[in-house]
Amino acid sequence: MATIDKVLAAIDADLDASLARLFELVRIPSVSTDPAHDADCRRAAQWVVDQLAGLGFEASARDTGGQPMVVAHGGAARGPGVPHVLFYGHYDVQPADPLDLWETPPFEPRLVETATGRQIVGRGASDDKGQFMTFVEACRAWISATGNLPIAVTVLIEGEEESGSRSLGPFLEAHKDELRADLALVCDTGMWNRETPAITTMLRGLLLEEVIVTAASRDLHSGMFGGPARNPIRVLARIIADLHDETGRIQVPDFYDGVSELDEDVRRQWQELGFDAGGFLADVGLSIPAGEAGRSVLEQIWSRPTCDVNGIIGGYTGEGTKTVIPSRASAKISFRLVGDQDPLRIRESFRGFVRDRIPADCSVEFIGHGASPALTVDMSRPEFARCAEALAAEFGRPAVMMGCGGSIPIVGDFKRTLGMESVLIGFGLDDDRVHSPNEKYELSSYHHGTRAWARVIGALAGSV
Amino acid sequence: MATIDKVLAAIDADLDASLARLFELVRIPSVSTDPAHDADCRRAAQWVVDQLAGLGFEASARDTGGQPMVVAHGGAARGPGVPHVLFYGHYDVQPADPLDLWETPPFEPRLVETATGRQIVGRGASDDKGQFMTFVEACRAWISATGNLPIAVTVLIEGEEESGSRSLGPFLEAHKDELRADLALVCDTGMWNRETPAITTMLRGLLLEEVIVTAASRDLHSGMFGGPARNPIRVLARIIADLHDETGRIQVPDFYDGVSELDEDVRRQWQELGFDAGGFLADVGLSIPAGEAGRSVLEQIWSRPTCDVNGIIGGYTGEGTKTVIPSRASAKISFRLVGDQDPLRIRESFRGFVRDRIPADCSVEFIGHGASPALTVDMSRPEFARCAEALAAEFGRPAVMMGCGGSIPIVGDFKRTLGMESVLIGFGLDDDRVHSPNEKYELSSYHHGTRAWARVIGALAGSV
Repeated sequence: MATIDKVLAAIDADLDASLARLFELVRIPSVSTDPAHDADCRRAAQWVVDQLAGLGFEASARDTGGQPMVVAHGGAARGPGVPHVLFYGHYDVQPADPLDLWETPPFEPRLVETATGRQIVGRGASDDKGQFMTFVEACRAWISATGNLPIAVTVLIEGEEESGSRSLGPFLEAHKDELRADLALVCDTGMWNRETPAITTMLRGLLLEEVIVTAASRDLHSGMFGGPARNPIRVLARIIADLHDETGRIQVPDFYDGVSELDEDVRRQWQELGFDAGGFLADVGLSIPAGEAGRSVLEQIWSRPTCDVNGIIGGYTGEGTKTVIPSRASAKISFRLVGDQDPLRIRESFRGFVRDRIPADCSVEFIGHGASPALTVDMSRPEFARCAEALAAEFGRPAVMMGCGGSIPIVGDFKRTLGMESVLIGFGLDDDRVHSPNEKYELSSYHHGTRAWARVIGALAGSV
Repeated sequence: MATIDKVLAAIDADLDASLARLFELVRIPSVSTDPAHDADCRRAAQWVVDQLAGLGFEASARDTGGQPMVVAHGGAARGPGVPHVLFYGHYDVQPADPLDLWETPPFEPRLVETATGRQIVGRGASDDKGQFMTFVEACRAWISATGNLPIAVTVLIEGEEESGSRSLGPFLEAHKDELRADLALVCDTGMWNRETPAITTMLRGLLLEEVIVTAASRDLHSGMFGGPARNPIRVLARIIADLHDETGRIQVPDFYDGVSELDEDVRRQWQELGFDAGGFLADVGLSIPAGEAGRSVLEQIWSRPTCDVNGIIGGYTGEGTKTVIPSRASAKISFRLVGDQDPLRIRESFRGFVRDRIPADCSVEFIGHGASPALTVDMSRPEFARCAEALAAEFGRPAVMMGCGGSIPIVGDFKRTLGMESVLIGFGLDDDRVHSPNEKYELSSYHHGTRAWARVIGALAGSV
């Protein structure tokens, strides 16, 4: 029996226990953006440390300005001819609200039977707990089947990916030598579809801004003041309405600097993918592409920048009515960036765009929540081919090289700070309801994902 | 010692006890718009019943579809030559939020010393608990000083004024004969200023609408869907931005039907009032009149219609960030109406205006929260002069006949359903922070208000 088959057999035999371990982790509500969950984030970090230590890794949770960072070293002894990878994932999750839309409590994971197979339901089941656990479980299988890993492995699991990864840059800077490896493996992306694996090669950047508009010094009675009194909700609505023209083009000055048209080969490749745009939208109850006019849905998601309002609040939002003119209104606005767009220059331009629309007797406050540029991965490295082969072997069909609308700032940091290429392999599906109520991860994603990583590890071992 | 002087002396002597009674009432958080406070509304109604019963009134709290209605009959036996008034007020209050802006708990009333005198601070201290209690306490003084009231009095204290007065119309219809009197007295308006009493003769109408826009069937990840996915916050912001043109004119079709230009005499009268528009705005931290261009601030408040957004919410509004494209967003929008504007026709026109701006793959839901037309009181009745004289006698200066930006639907109902004129007398001040945190009522408003009502009662007794 070939070594890899022993490893895969170990994964199959251990699936139930492996699932139980994932459930333990999902039960920890490690919401990094909310200080109320700081203790939970620490618990999640320690849980990961314990798992890796149990596999013989030298593991620890390192304090940062924000949530702790898990770092672990294990596998084959480093040395000439021994491939060394840095695996990255994150243990923090998005807030679970709106809670009332969850069919079962977000932090009480369970297996649900569906027409398409069994699903693991819970916040973080897919993003990113289920995803990074596939790699941890693959390591476990290699160790139980062969006594060790065939490559040297450093694991970095952060706790601020869902809240701007503020501590990550400084941490990488401070631990360059400890964290540098031949290659980074990142598990926070998706498959092309239920049957087809993928390696993600393009990522959008992200700029997060919060805008708070203040008009009167206190809430006012709309009867006594309605008319002459400025309404900050109206001021904010006007700003939001002005952000796009009727073709969906973003109006922030110089916003499109650094945005280039799609390379013709890539465009052709994407057309050949036969992406079902109608089905993609229909799956979430929509039918009309709302992005820039004249762009395909795939382009709108993978290669075009966006501006979205992620949240807005002002005035009375309880039941019934209150005839008030509020003193303030605020909105959380985010930009997905592509190509060479500069997040910091766009931040300044956006703030100027907003200030230009603030009446003289109102004030505006900005809170910056993080900024990361877009990224394109260099696929010329031989390991890419090895990884693609390993995925193809597991799923029985070639891996798609795809773009990704999401943002994984770490990949840029790896390149800039550690001079490391990243291979982005993940097993999420478009309908995983990531960041939404009833988030799920297919049991098949978890199982085949673990097996796929086992194969990748084996392939990389042979890659020198 | 003239009878009225005995009554006024009784008021002065009883002020502390009178204040203690008001505090008892303010301690009951009777927020009518929030079902969580239904029991408190019932408690407040019963408290008022007990007070009036204690004064020998035949009082009861009547069930309605919403909050109970307090009805009481007392004073001089009805009959030829005995004036009969219906006094109206409301025991319900606005929600207290934002709670963190209150310097002291909203439902723990207290007396605060200020440079301009002592203030009663608490939700409802002015609107309308402090106001209607001035009349109740005036009745108490007449009874304690003379054994009875010189006129027949019916008291109607409702509990839904702050939430659309839904039950009031049907209740009046059902109890026409019981409630009909020679004249209605309404205490829910203000003085011209700290020293000058006023009778309000123009009231704006009010239309309350809630708009809920739904796009995707669930919240979406802005990375995975940002671009092609419709954002309901953006749809709603566009609608709100479209509601006014750059001159502040409201764009809802036919909205201005029934709005007439101000009568020249009234305009001159208002100019002569020497209203300090700059001070009015500066008092709340504003400086630029935001209403229709070319209209004075007094016009914008008293005689022009408005459209305001009282609240908006959508997406993630907690701490930090969440890169979500929400499924829905909603706003509470209200219109102040004047002249002959028809609230129901405007509601239909507004809903059409909104529907025209809803993309084909989105849906919109409307919740109507009440609609009442504007009103102009007929001042030809002799009682108006008597009331004005009584006010002048108490404050030592003539009463101003003024407009009011607020809405008191009951006055229209009294006219239409009971064929009754209303005299609107109140002692609130512009800076009472009605509907805002730290609402207050001047102790002088409470004391002189009570004395003024005692004089009005006496004047009406002599008015036949």
